[in-house]
Amino acid sequence: MEQSFLAYLRGRTRSLPSVAVGIGDDAAVLDLPGSAAALDQSKPRDSSSDESASETPASPSLQQVACTDQIIDGVDFCSDSQPLASIGYKSIAINLSDIAAMGATPTAALVTLALPAHNATEIAGEVYEGILEACGQYGVAIAGGDLSTYDGPLSISVTLLGTVTGPWLRSGAQEGDVIFVTGSLGGSLAGRHLRPVPRIELAIRLRQYATVNAAIDISDGFSLDLDRMLASSRVGAELDIEQIPISDAAHTMSKDSGRSPLEHAWSDGEDFELIFTVNETDAAKIEQLSADELTTTVTRVGNVVGRTGLWKRVPGSKLERVFPQGYVHGETDE
Amino acid sequence: MEQSFLAYLRGRTRSLPSVAVGIGDDAAVLDLPGSAAALDQSKPRDSSSDESASETPASPSLQQVACTDQIIDGVDFCSDSQPLASIGYKSIAINLSDIAAMGATPTAALVTLALPAHNATEIAGEVYEGILEACGQYGVAIAGGDLSTYDGPLSISVTLLGTVTGPWLRSGAQEGDVIFVTGSLGGSLAGRHLRPVPRIELAIRLRQYATVNAAIDISDGFSLDLDRMLASSRVGAELDIEQIPISDAAHTMSKDSGRSPLEHAWSDGEDFELIFTVNETDAAKIEQLSADELTTTVTRVGNVVGRTGLWKRVPGSKLERVFPQGYVHGETDE
Repeated sequence: MEQSFLAYLRGRTRSLPSVAVGIGDDAAVLDLPGSAAALDQSKPRDSSSDESASETPASPSLQQVACTDQIIDGVDFCSDSQPLASIGYKSIAINLSDIAAMGATPTAALVTLALPAHNATEIAGEVYEGILEACGQYGVAIAGGDLSTYDGPLSISVTLLGTVTGPWLRSGAQEGDVIFVTGSLGGSLAGRHLRPVPRIELAIRLRQYATVNAAIDISDGFSLDLDRMLASSRVGAELDIEQIPISDAAHTMSKDSGRSPLEHAWSDGEDFELIFTVNETDAAKIEQLSADELTTTVTRVGNVVGRTGLWKRVPGSKLERVFPQGYVHGETDE
Repeated sequence: MEQSFLAYLRGRTRSLPSVAVGIGDDAAVLDLPGSAAALDQSKPRDSSSDESASETPASPSLQQVACTDQIIDGVDFCSDSQPLASIGYKSIAINLSDIAAMGATPTAALVTLALPAHNATEIAGEVYEGILEACGQYGVAIAGGDLSTYDGPLSISVTLLGTVTGPWLRSGAQEGDVIFVTGSLGGSLAGRHLRPVPRIELAIRLRQYATVNAAIDISDGFSLDLDRMLASSRVGAELDIEQIPISDAAHTMSKDSGRSPLEHAWSDGEDFELIFTVNETDAAKIEQLSADELTTTVTRVGNVVGRTGLWKRVPGSKLERVFPQGYVHGETDE
């Protein structure tokens, strides 16, 4: 139900006050009162006598980002086979991945637990071990939260706050941009998905070298999330499919799954890597940096083109259309 | 489990980055990077050559507030007997009450629903009717959220963001302060609790006339929340018990409950009124304002005193100690 309900909601919220970026990106972006962005909106357009009028275009000002993600036992994880501390860790990491996809710096988390009444305190303690570990690792404060016990499965809902100057949006990809992806893809469910590495540090470093035009994190599958980002930007992509970085886990999984390693990389969810686009000049700069300097490898996988859809480059031949695949929320739900 | 777990958590989060006000108040308070408060912390204490050094004490700067509250079917409400739209409305209103208790202005909400798989879309639609109504009424944007379907009861988790200059803390009550309470108390469960009036507008108007030293909203009972606020401030109160404003609903309920109207006002939860303290000068100013000017009645119920605990003034007699009563989270669980 998720996609269609979100569309309904976007319509219904039009009469409410709006935020700079609302429902539909990795995180929301809010102007801060008194910031340049907020003042820009409130001052008359024709004022030209003040000092700041010479700064054209206005340099982006500090904004707030906020995102929220809930994971539930039996739906998003399985407490019988996965350590509760890892699940707690993951609940923070997946939200950090959304913050990274905005090019933002995380500041604080609000953590809400719904706990099975039986063993509530023990469960909360174990989950918090992982939450505290992840928050410690990425410099995130725990600003608050809520705890309830009830007759239901463990549910963890995290809201993460951060700040950003010039957020990376899904909608900013430009024709001609180079498309990069971080790390290597596929096979996350073999284990990596419990301890994903949110690309917070990479995002911070990338900002020093390049202007990222668009970004998204891979939660539902490389091709599906790439397609979402491009659709938001009303563009398409020509892909060098053989360049897609395939993880070792995808190769291993492929032995039993009946699917090729590339198919895993193309469609497996929970990679929590970033896809981002930059112009050719910045792409060249990025390619001169080592994985150490960027904290991880980044791989050029294609270009943004005006024609919508995903297109595979075939040497000496015409382009072939390829189709996104991945985990679509709600399709397996009733 | 809630109080003891929060104590544990406060200890464990000490190694993490901190926020200006963290776990334990109605909402968290975060400094904004680049704000005067954040700059004050980062600049050397002895710098005296810059222009702002003449502003002593530094005027409070804009900060961000954030709070979160979760309500679950069968624990906090009953979907069999209560309209889903009202429950949605309440999920926003109880968070707005926390924002009001900080003296803050709400900006945006993130709304997370865990939905029973059966009828998920219909339930989400009805809940959102109330959410949208409350957000519209109080000028709150819906910045984002999450939706899941699962094998469990309806759960609504809301994070509310806002801004404030000089937040009202539980810990700020001063000896000699006058204690006020808004509206009238008790009997909320007869119906008012589903459509509580968060005192957002009152808080905004109050700021124009008075310096509020401490505030809390009544979620678990007047005497219990008053006691919490005073304990945070390490002070106590002398109360004119007969001044406590008793609601009509408390009188009505009293007929069947075997408890006096005053007992209802003293201990009933979910009033969502504010208790606040100001000095005598500001108290006199407030008492000259009409209920219209403040949006609701405010009633002087006693004074802050250095001796901890709640004390009842008895004319022509010594003070009598009285004890807080109300809803203590976790006591009825397990």
